[in-house]
Amino acid sequence: MSARAPWRVLNENQIEQLHQAALTILARTGVVFNSPEALGYFRQAGARINENRVYLTPDLIEHALSTAPSAYKLHARNPANSLTIGGESCAVMPGGGPPFVRDLEGLRRPGRLADVENFARLSQMSPDVHVMARKAVEAQDVPAVARHLECWRAVLTLTDKPAQSGFVYGRAEAEDALQMLSIVFDGENAIEGKPVAHCSVNANSPLLYDKPMLESLIAFARYGQAILISPFVMAGVTGPATVAGALAQHNAEVLAGMALVQLVRPGTPVLYGTASSNVDLRTAAPAIGSPESALSIAICAQLARRYSLPCRGGGALTDSPIPDAQSNYERTMTLLISILSGVNFLMHGLGILESYLTMSYEQFIIDLELLAMVRRLVEPFEISPEALALEAIEAVGPGGHFLEAQHTLRHFREAHFLPQLSLRQPFEQWEQEGAKDAVQRANDRCRDLLEAYVKPNMDTDIADRLHDFVERRKSALLA
Amino acid sequence: MSARAPWRVLNENQIEQLHQAALTILARTGVVFNSPEALGYFRQAGARINENRVYLTPDLIEHALSTAPSAYKLHARNPANSLTIGGESCAVMPGGGPPFVRDLEGLRRPGRLADVENFARLSQMSPDVHVMARKAVEAQDVPAVARHLECWRAVLTLTDKPAQSGFVYGRAEAEDALQMLSIVFDGENAIEGKPVAHCSVNANSPLLYDKPMLESLIAFARYGQAILISPFVMAGVTGPATVAGALAQHNAEVLAGMALVQLVRPGTPVLYGTASSNVDLRTAAPAIGSPESALSIAICAQLARRYSLPCRGGGALTDSPIPDAQSNYERTMTLLISILSGVNFLMHGLGILESYLTMSYEQFIIDLELLAMVRRLVEPFEISPEALALEAIEAVGPGGHFLEAQHTLRHFREAHFLPQLSLRQPFEQWEQEGAKDAVQRANDRCRDLLEAYVKPNMDTDIADRLHDFVERRKSALLA
Repeated sequence: MSARAPWRVLNENQIEQLHQAALTILARTGVVFNSPEALGYFRQAGARINENRVYLTPDLIEHALSTAPSAYKLHARNPANSLTIGGESCAVMPGGGPPFVRDLEGLRRPGRLADVENFARLSQMSPDVHVMARKAVEAQDVPAVARHLECWRAVLTLTDKPAQSGFVYGRAEAEDALQMLSIVFDGENAIEGKPVAHCSVNANSPLLYDKPMLESLIAFARYGQAILISPFVMAGVTGPATVAGALAQHNAEVLAGMALVQLVRPGTPVLYGTASSNVDLRTAAPAIGSPESALSIAICAQLARRYSLPCRGGGALTDSPIPDAQSNYERTMTLLISILSGVNFLMHGLGILESYLTMSYEQFIIDLELLAMVRRLVEPFEISPEALALEAIEAVGPGGHFLEAQHTLRHFREAHFLPQLSLRQPFEQWEQEGAKDAVQRANDRCRDLLEAYVKPNMDTDIADRLHDFVERRKSALLA
Repeated sequence: MSARAPWRVLNENQIEQLHQAALTILARTGVVFNSPEALGYFRQAGARINENRVYLTPDLIEHALSTAPSAYKLHARNPANSLTIGGESCAVMPGGGPPFVRDLEGLRRPGRLADVENFARLSQMSPDVHVMARKAVEAQDVPAVARHLECWRAVLTLTDKPAQSGFVYGRAEAEDALQMLSIVFDGENAIEGKPVAHCSVNANSPLLYDKPMLESLIAFARYGQAILISPFVMAGVTGPATVAGALAQHNAEVLAGMALVQLVRPGTPVLYGTASSNVDLRTAAPAIGSPESALSIAICAQLARRYSLPCRGGGALTDSPIPDAQSNYERTMTLLISILSGVNFLMHGLGILESYLTMSYEQFIIDLELLAMVRRLVEPFEISPEALALEAIEAVGPGGHFLEAQHTLRHFREAHFLPQLSLRQPFEQWEQEGAKDAVQRANDRCRDLLEAYVKPNMDTDIADRLHDFVERRKSALLA
């Protein structure tokens, strides 16, 4: 998916002001890094440090930006699914991380490993899903210490697309992930310097990185794996109430994380991320489906281009707990603004409800339709003699019709988007066929898709080694 | 509402090709005008005519374009509600014309005069509605010959915003409308050369204008009332299957209608309209919520700018029969693309369901929320020292929070969009409060709004004359 000329919220001068604001914050207020290892990197680079607070100079930031790539190849175990992140392309990932699931019986309940598996199956089958979430939901039926192992195994075996780690809590989890990825790519050094999985890192806004996040950042960066830095600045709580202020702080947090990645291993890909938005200042509840959320996505895409960094943003976002009208007007706005703004990596592109708290099967299926529609919208548009059809117009003439024209017969198969889910039929026919709304139709379609799933091939030897690793580590962790 | 720098689908060269394609169609294939009066205007201008088919030269088109204004003031009977159509602004009108209503009991039934009145009341109360639809629905409980009188009376008395005629079927209806508008603006010549109502005119695509449409075009244009020309080219049936071909023909149809308006009265405002879209080529059903519909809107906005004409496009469009997920993802896409593309007059901005066949109260209320969100998205974005909040960020520091910061207290009231309808609250609280979805909440809100409605003032003398006129004409027509 490509964005055409991106839609822009700010002019260049305003973007420059957000850049200068971040530099001021970094040099004057500084950023706390709660990890001796991280502090070591900054000390070695000559940064001024006071306890755990690092003051980053414009020079240090500029130098780091000079080694961060503007695009990179993200490798899949099936090379046909490898893809470039950056430039004009936009790769899509489903939702990842919610603790709850809205299941096909209409029940909201804690996520399970079976849900992680099902969303992996649905993603594998969907041409508009390019990158897998390691954990579409929290698998709450698996003990917390072993959860990452089970989720990685599910995603790495049930799909052959590249994966996104989601949050990784500390060094041990990071090392397990890197080991499993090495097995799948068939060799200890197979993934070194070869991005095969994104690692998500968030600041604890404002301006603080905690130890587990820093450990996983450092572990993944040492392998040259792409690091996705997405502060979750909630304007009014973890950042200033004004969106401009929240984004100034956000920008400082991304640049600080980016600088650390480049100090750990220069040239490692960094995605300029955003999950920043606002809270409803009447209740302090997060508002991820808000216009402010969409504006933040669009402005961060502009900032990422300013820095020549690939951009992660947005998704199909909503604060509604169910896949209703609100869920769909909010998500269509954030999704469309993300794509039109030129985001390169669309996280949370399918299934998210309730401010990231719930993944919905039905909404996932609806979002497949929505993504296919948006893809159509940003495809190249052909203007050619054949497309302009002047001969057909002359042949049909005033008052005629085109249903049986040769030109129509030549084009009717590919000329228009053909929905899989959306209705276009007489009211009476719809009533006779059960008067199902879009959610009920999505429910039917989801069951059909899960039944039709076919597992991708995996070398038996690799599969065995992967399972051995998981079982061995599980035994150790659960002992 | 303004669009920032518009989102563009085509480059300038491609727009020029659509222009040249239209000129070729107009000169070679020609356009049928089924009205001796219209043919008279073209004959007088020196156009070649064969029976009812007029061949329009590039010169004739260029000359007409030179007298059509790029913007105009649309006057309301309450001057505070007058507004400019054109430039960077976007005026919004609710849906108009559907034969059916989806009422607050959840029933789809034929439209009634009471519905026309209710939608007028809701529109009067809504800051994001700028122009009224004369008939939000067909008032099927009023005899067809007198329907226009009752609907005009309802809209002119229950609101004091400017109105849109919708389709006017022939000279008599047009003259009635112009008489009633003259009464409301207090004088026989009060509206001459002063746009107070849009007149909608569609071609019978391909390339044919029928007699009733031409009669109303000529009647309104003689008074200098703005003419909105919106071909309804359905790619694959009433135009070529390719969107490019459909738009080449569409462009020719608009230019032909625009030329006639300028021949009738040079300088009369013409809106470059579009209702063009595609049909589902599996069933020949219209698809107004399709990506092709959104693309047509965006490209027509570019064409209108090419011609320096104000642009009418889009709306909140869907093919779903109910206000469900489909209704809301389709309408959010077409609405957002309309606004981002720089449309000046958004027709069908609220309430439309089922490919223009149904108006929904609940969807109307949902669309108010959607429009308020989009307005927020395209408002100027402030980057200033106060907005960037560097002092607040320094004062709070790493690991702090902004809930009680002075900066937050200064800004929390206006910093974010405050929804009227969208939920942002804990799941448990939502369940306790009845677990209402967005449609149920919209239903509640609609009843509240209708109860709170206050009729705008109207001079007693004017009101009396208006009612006398309607009663006299009704007697004559129903005799």
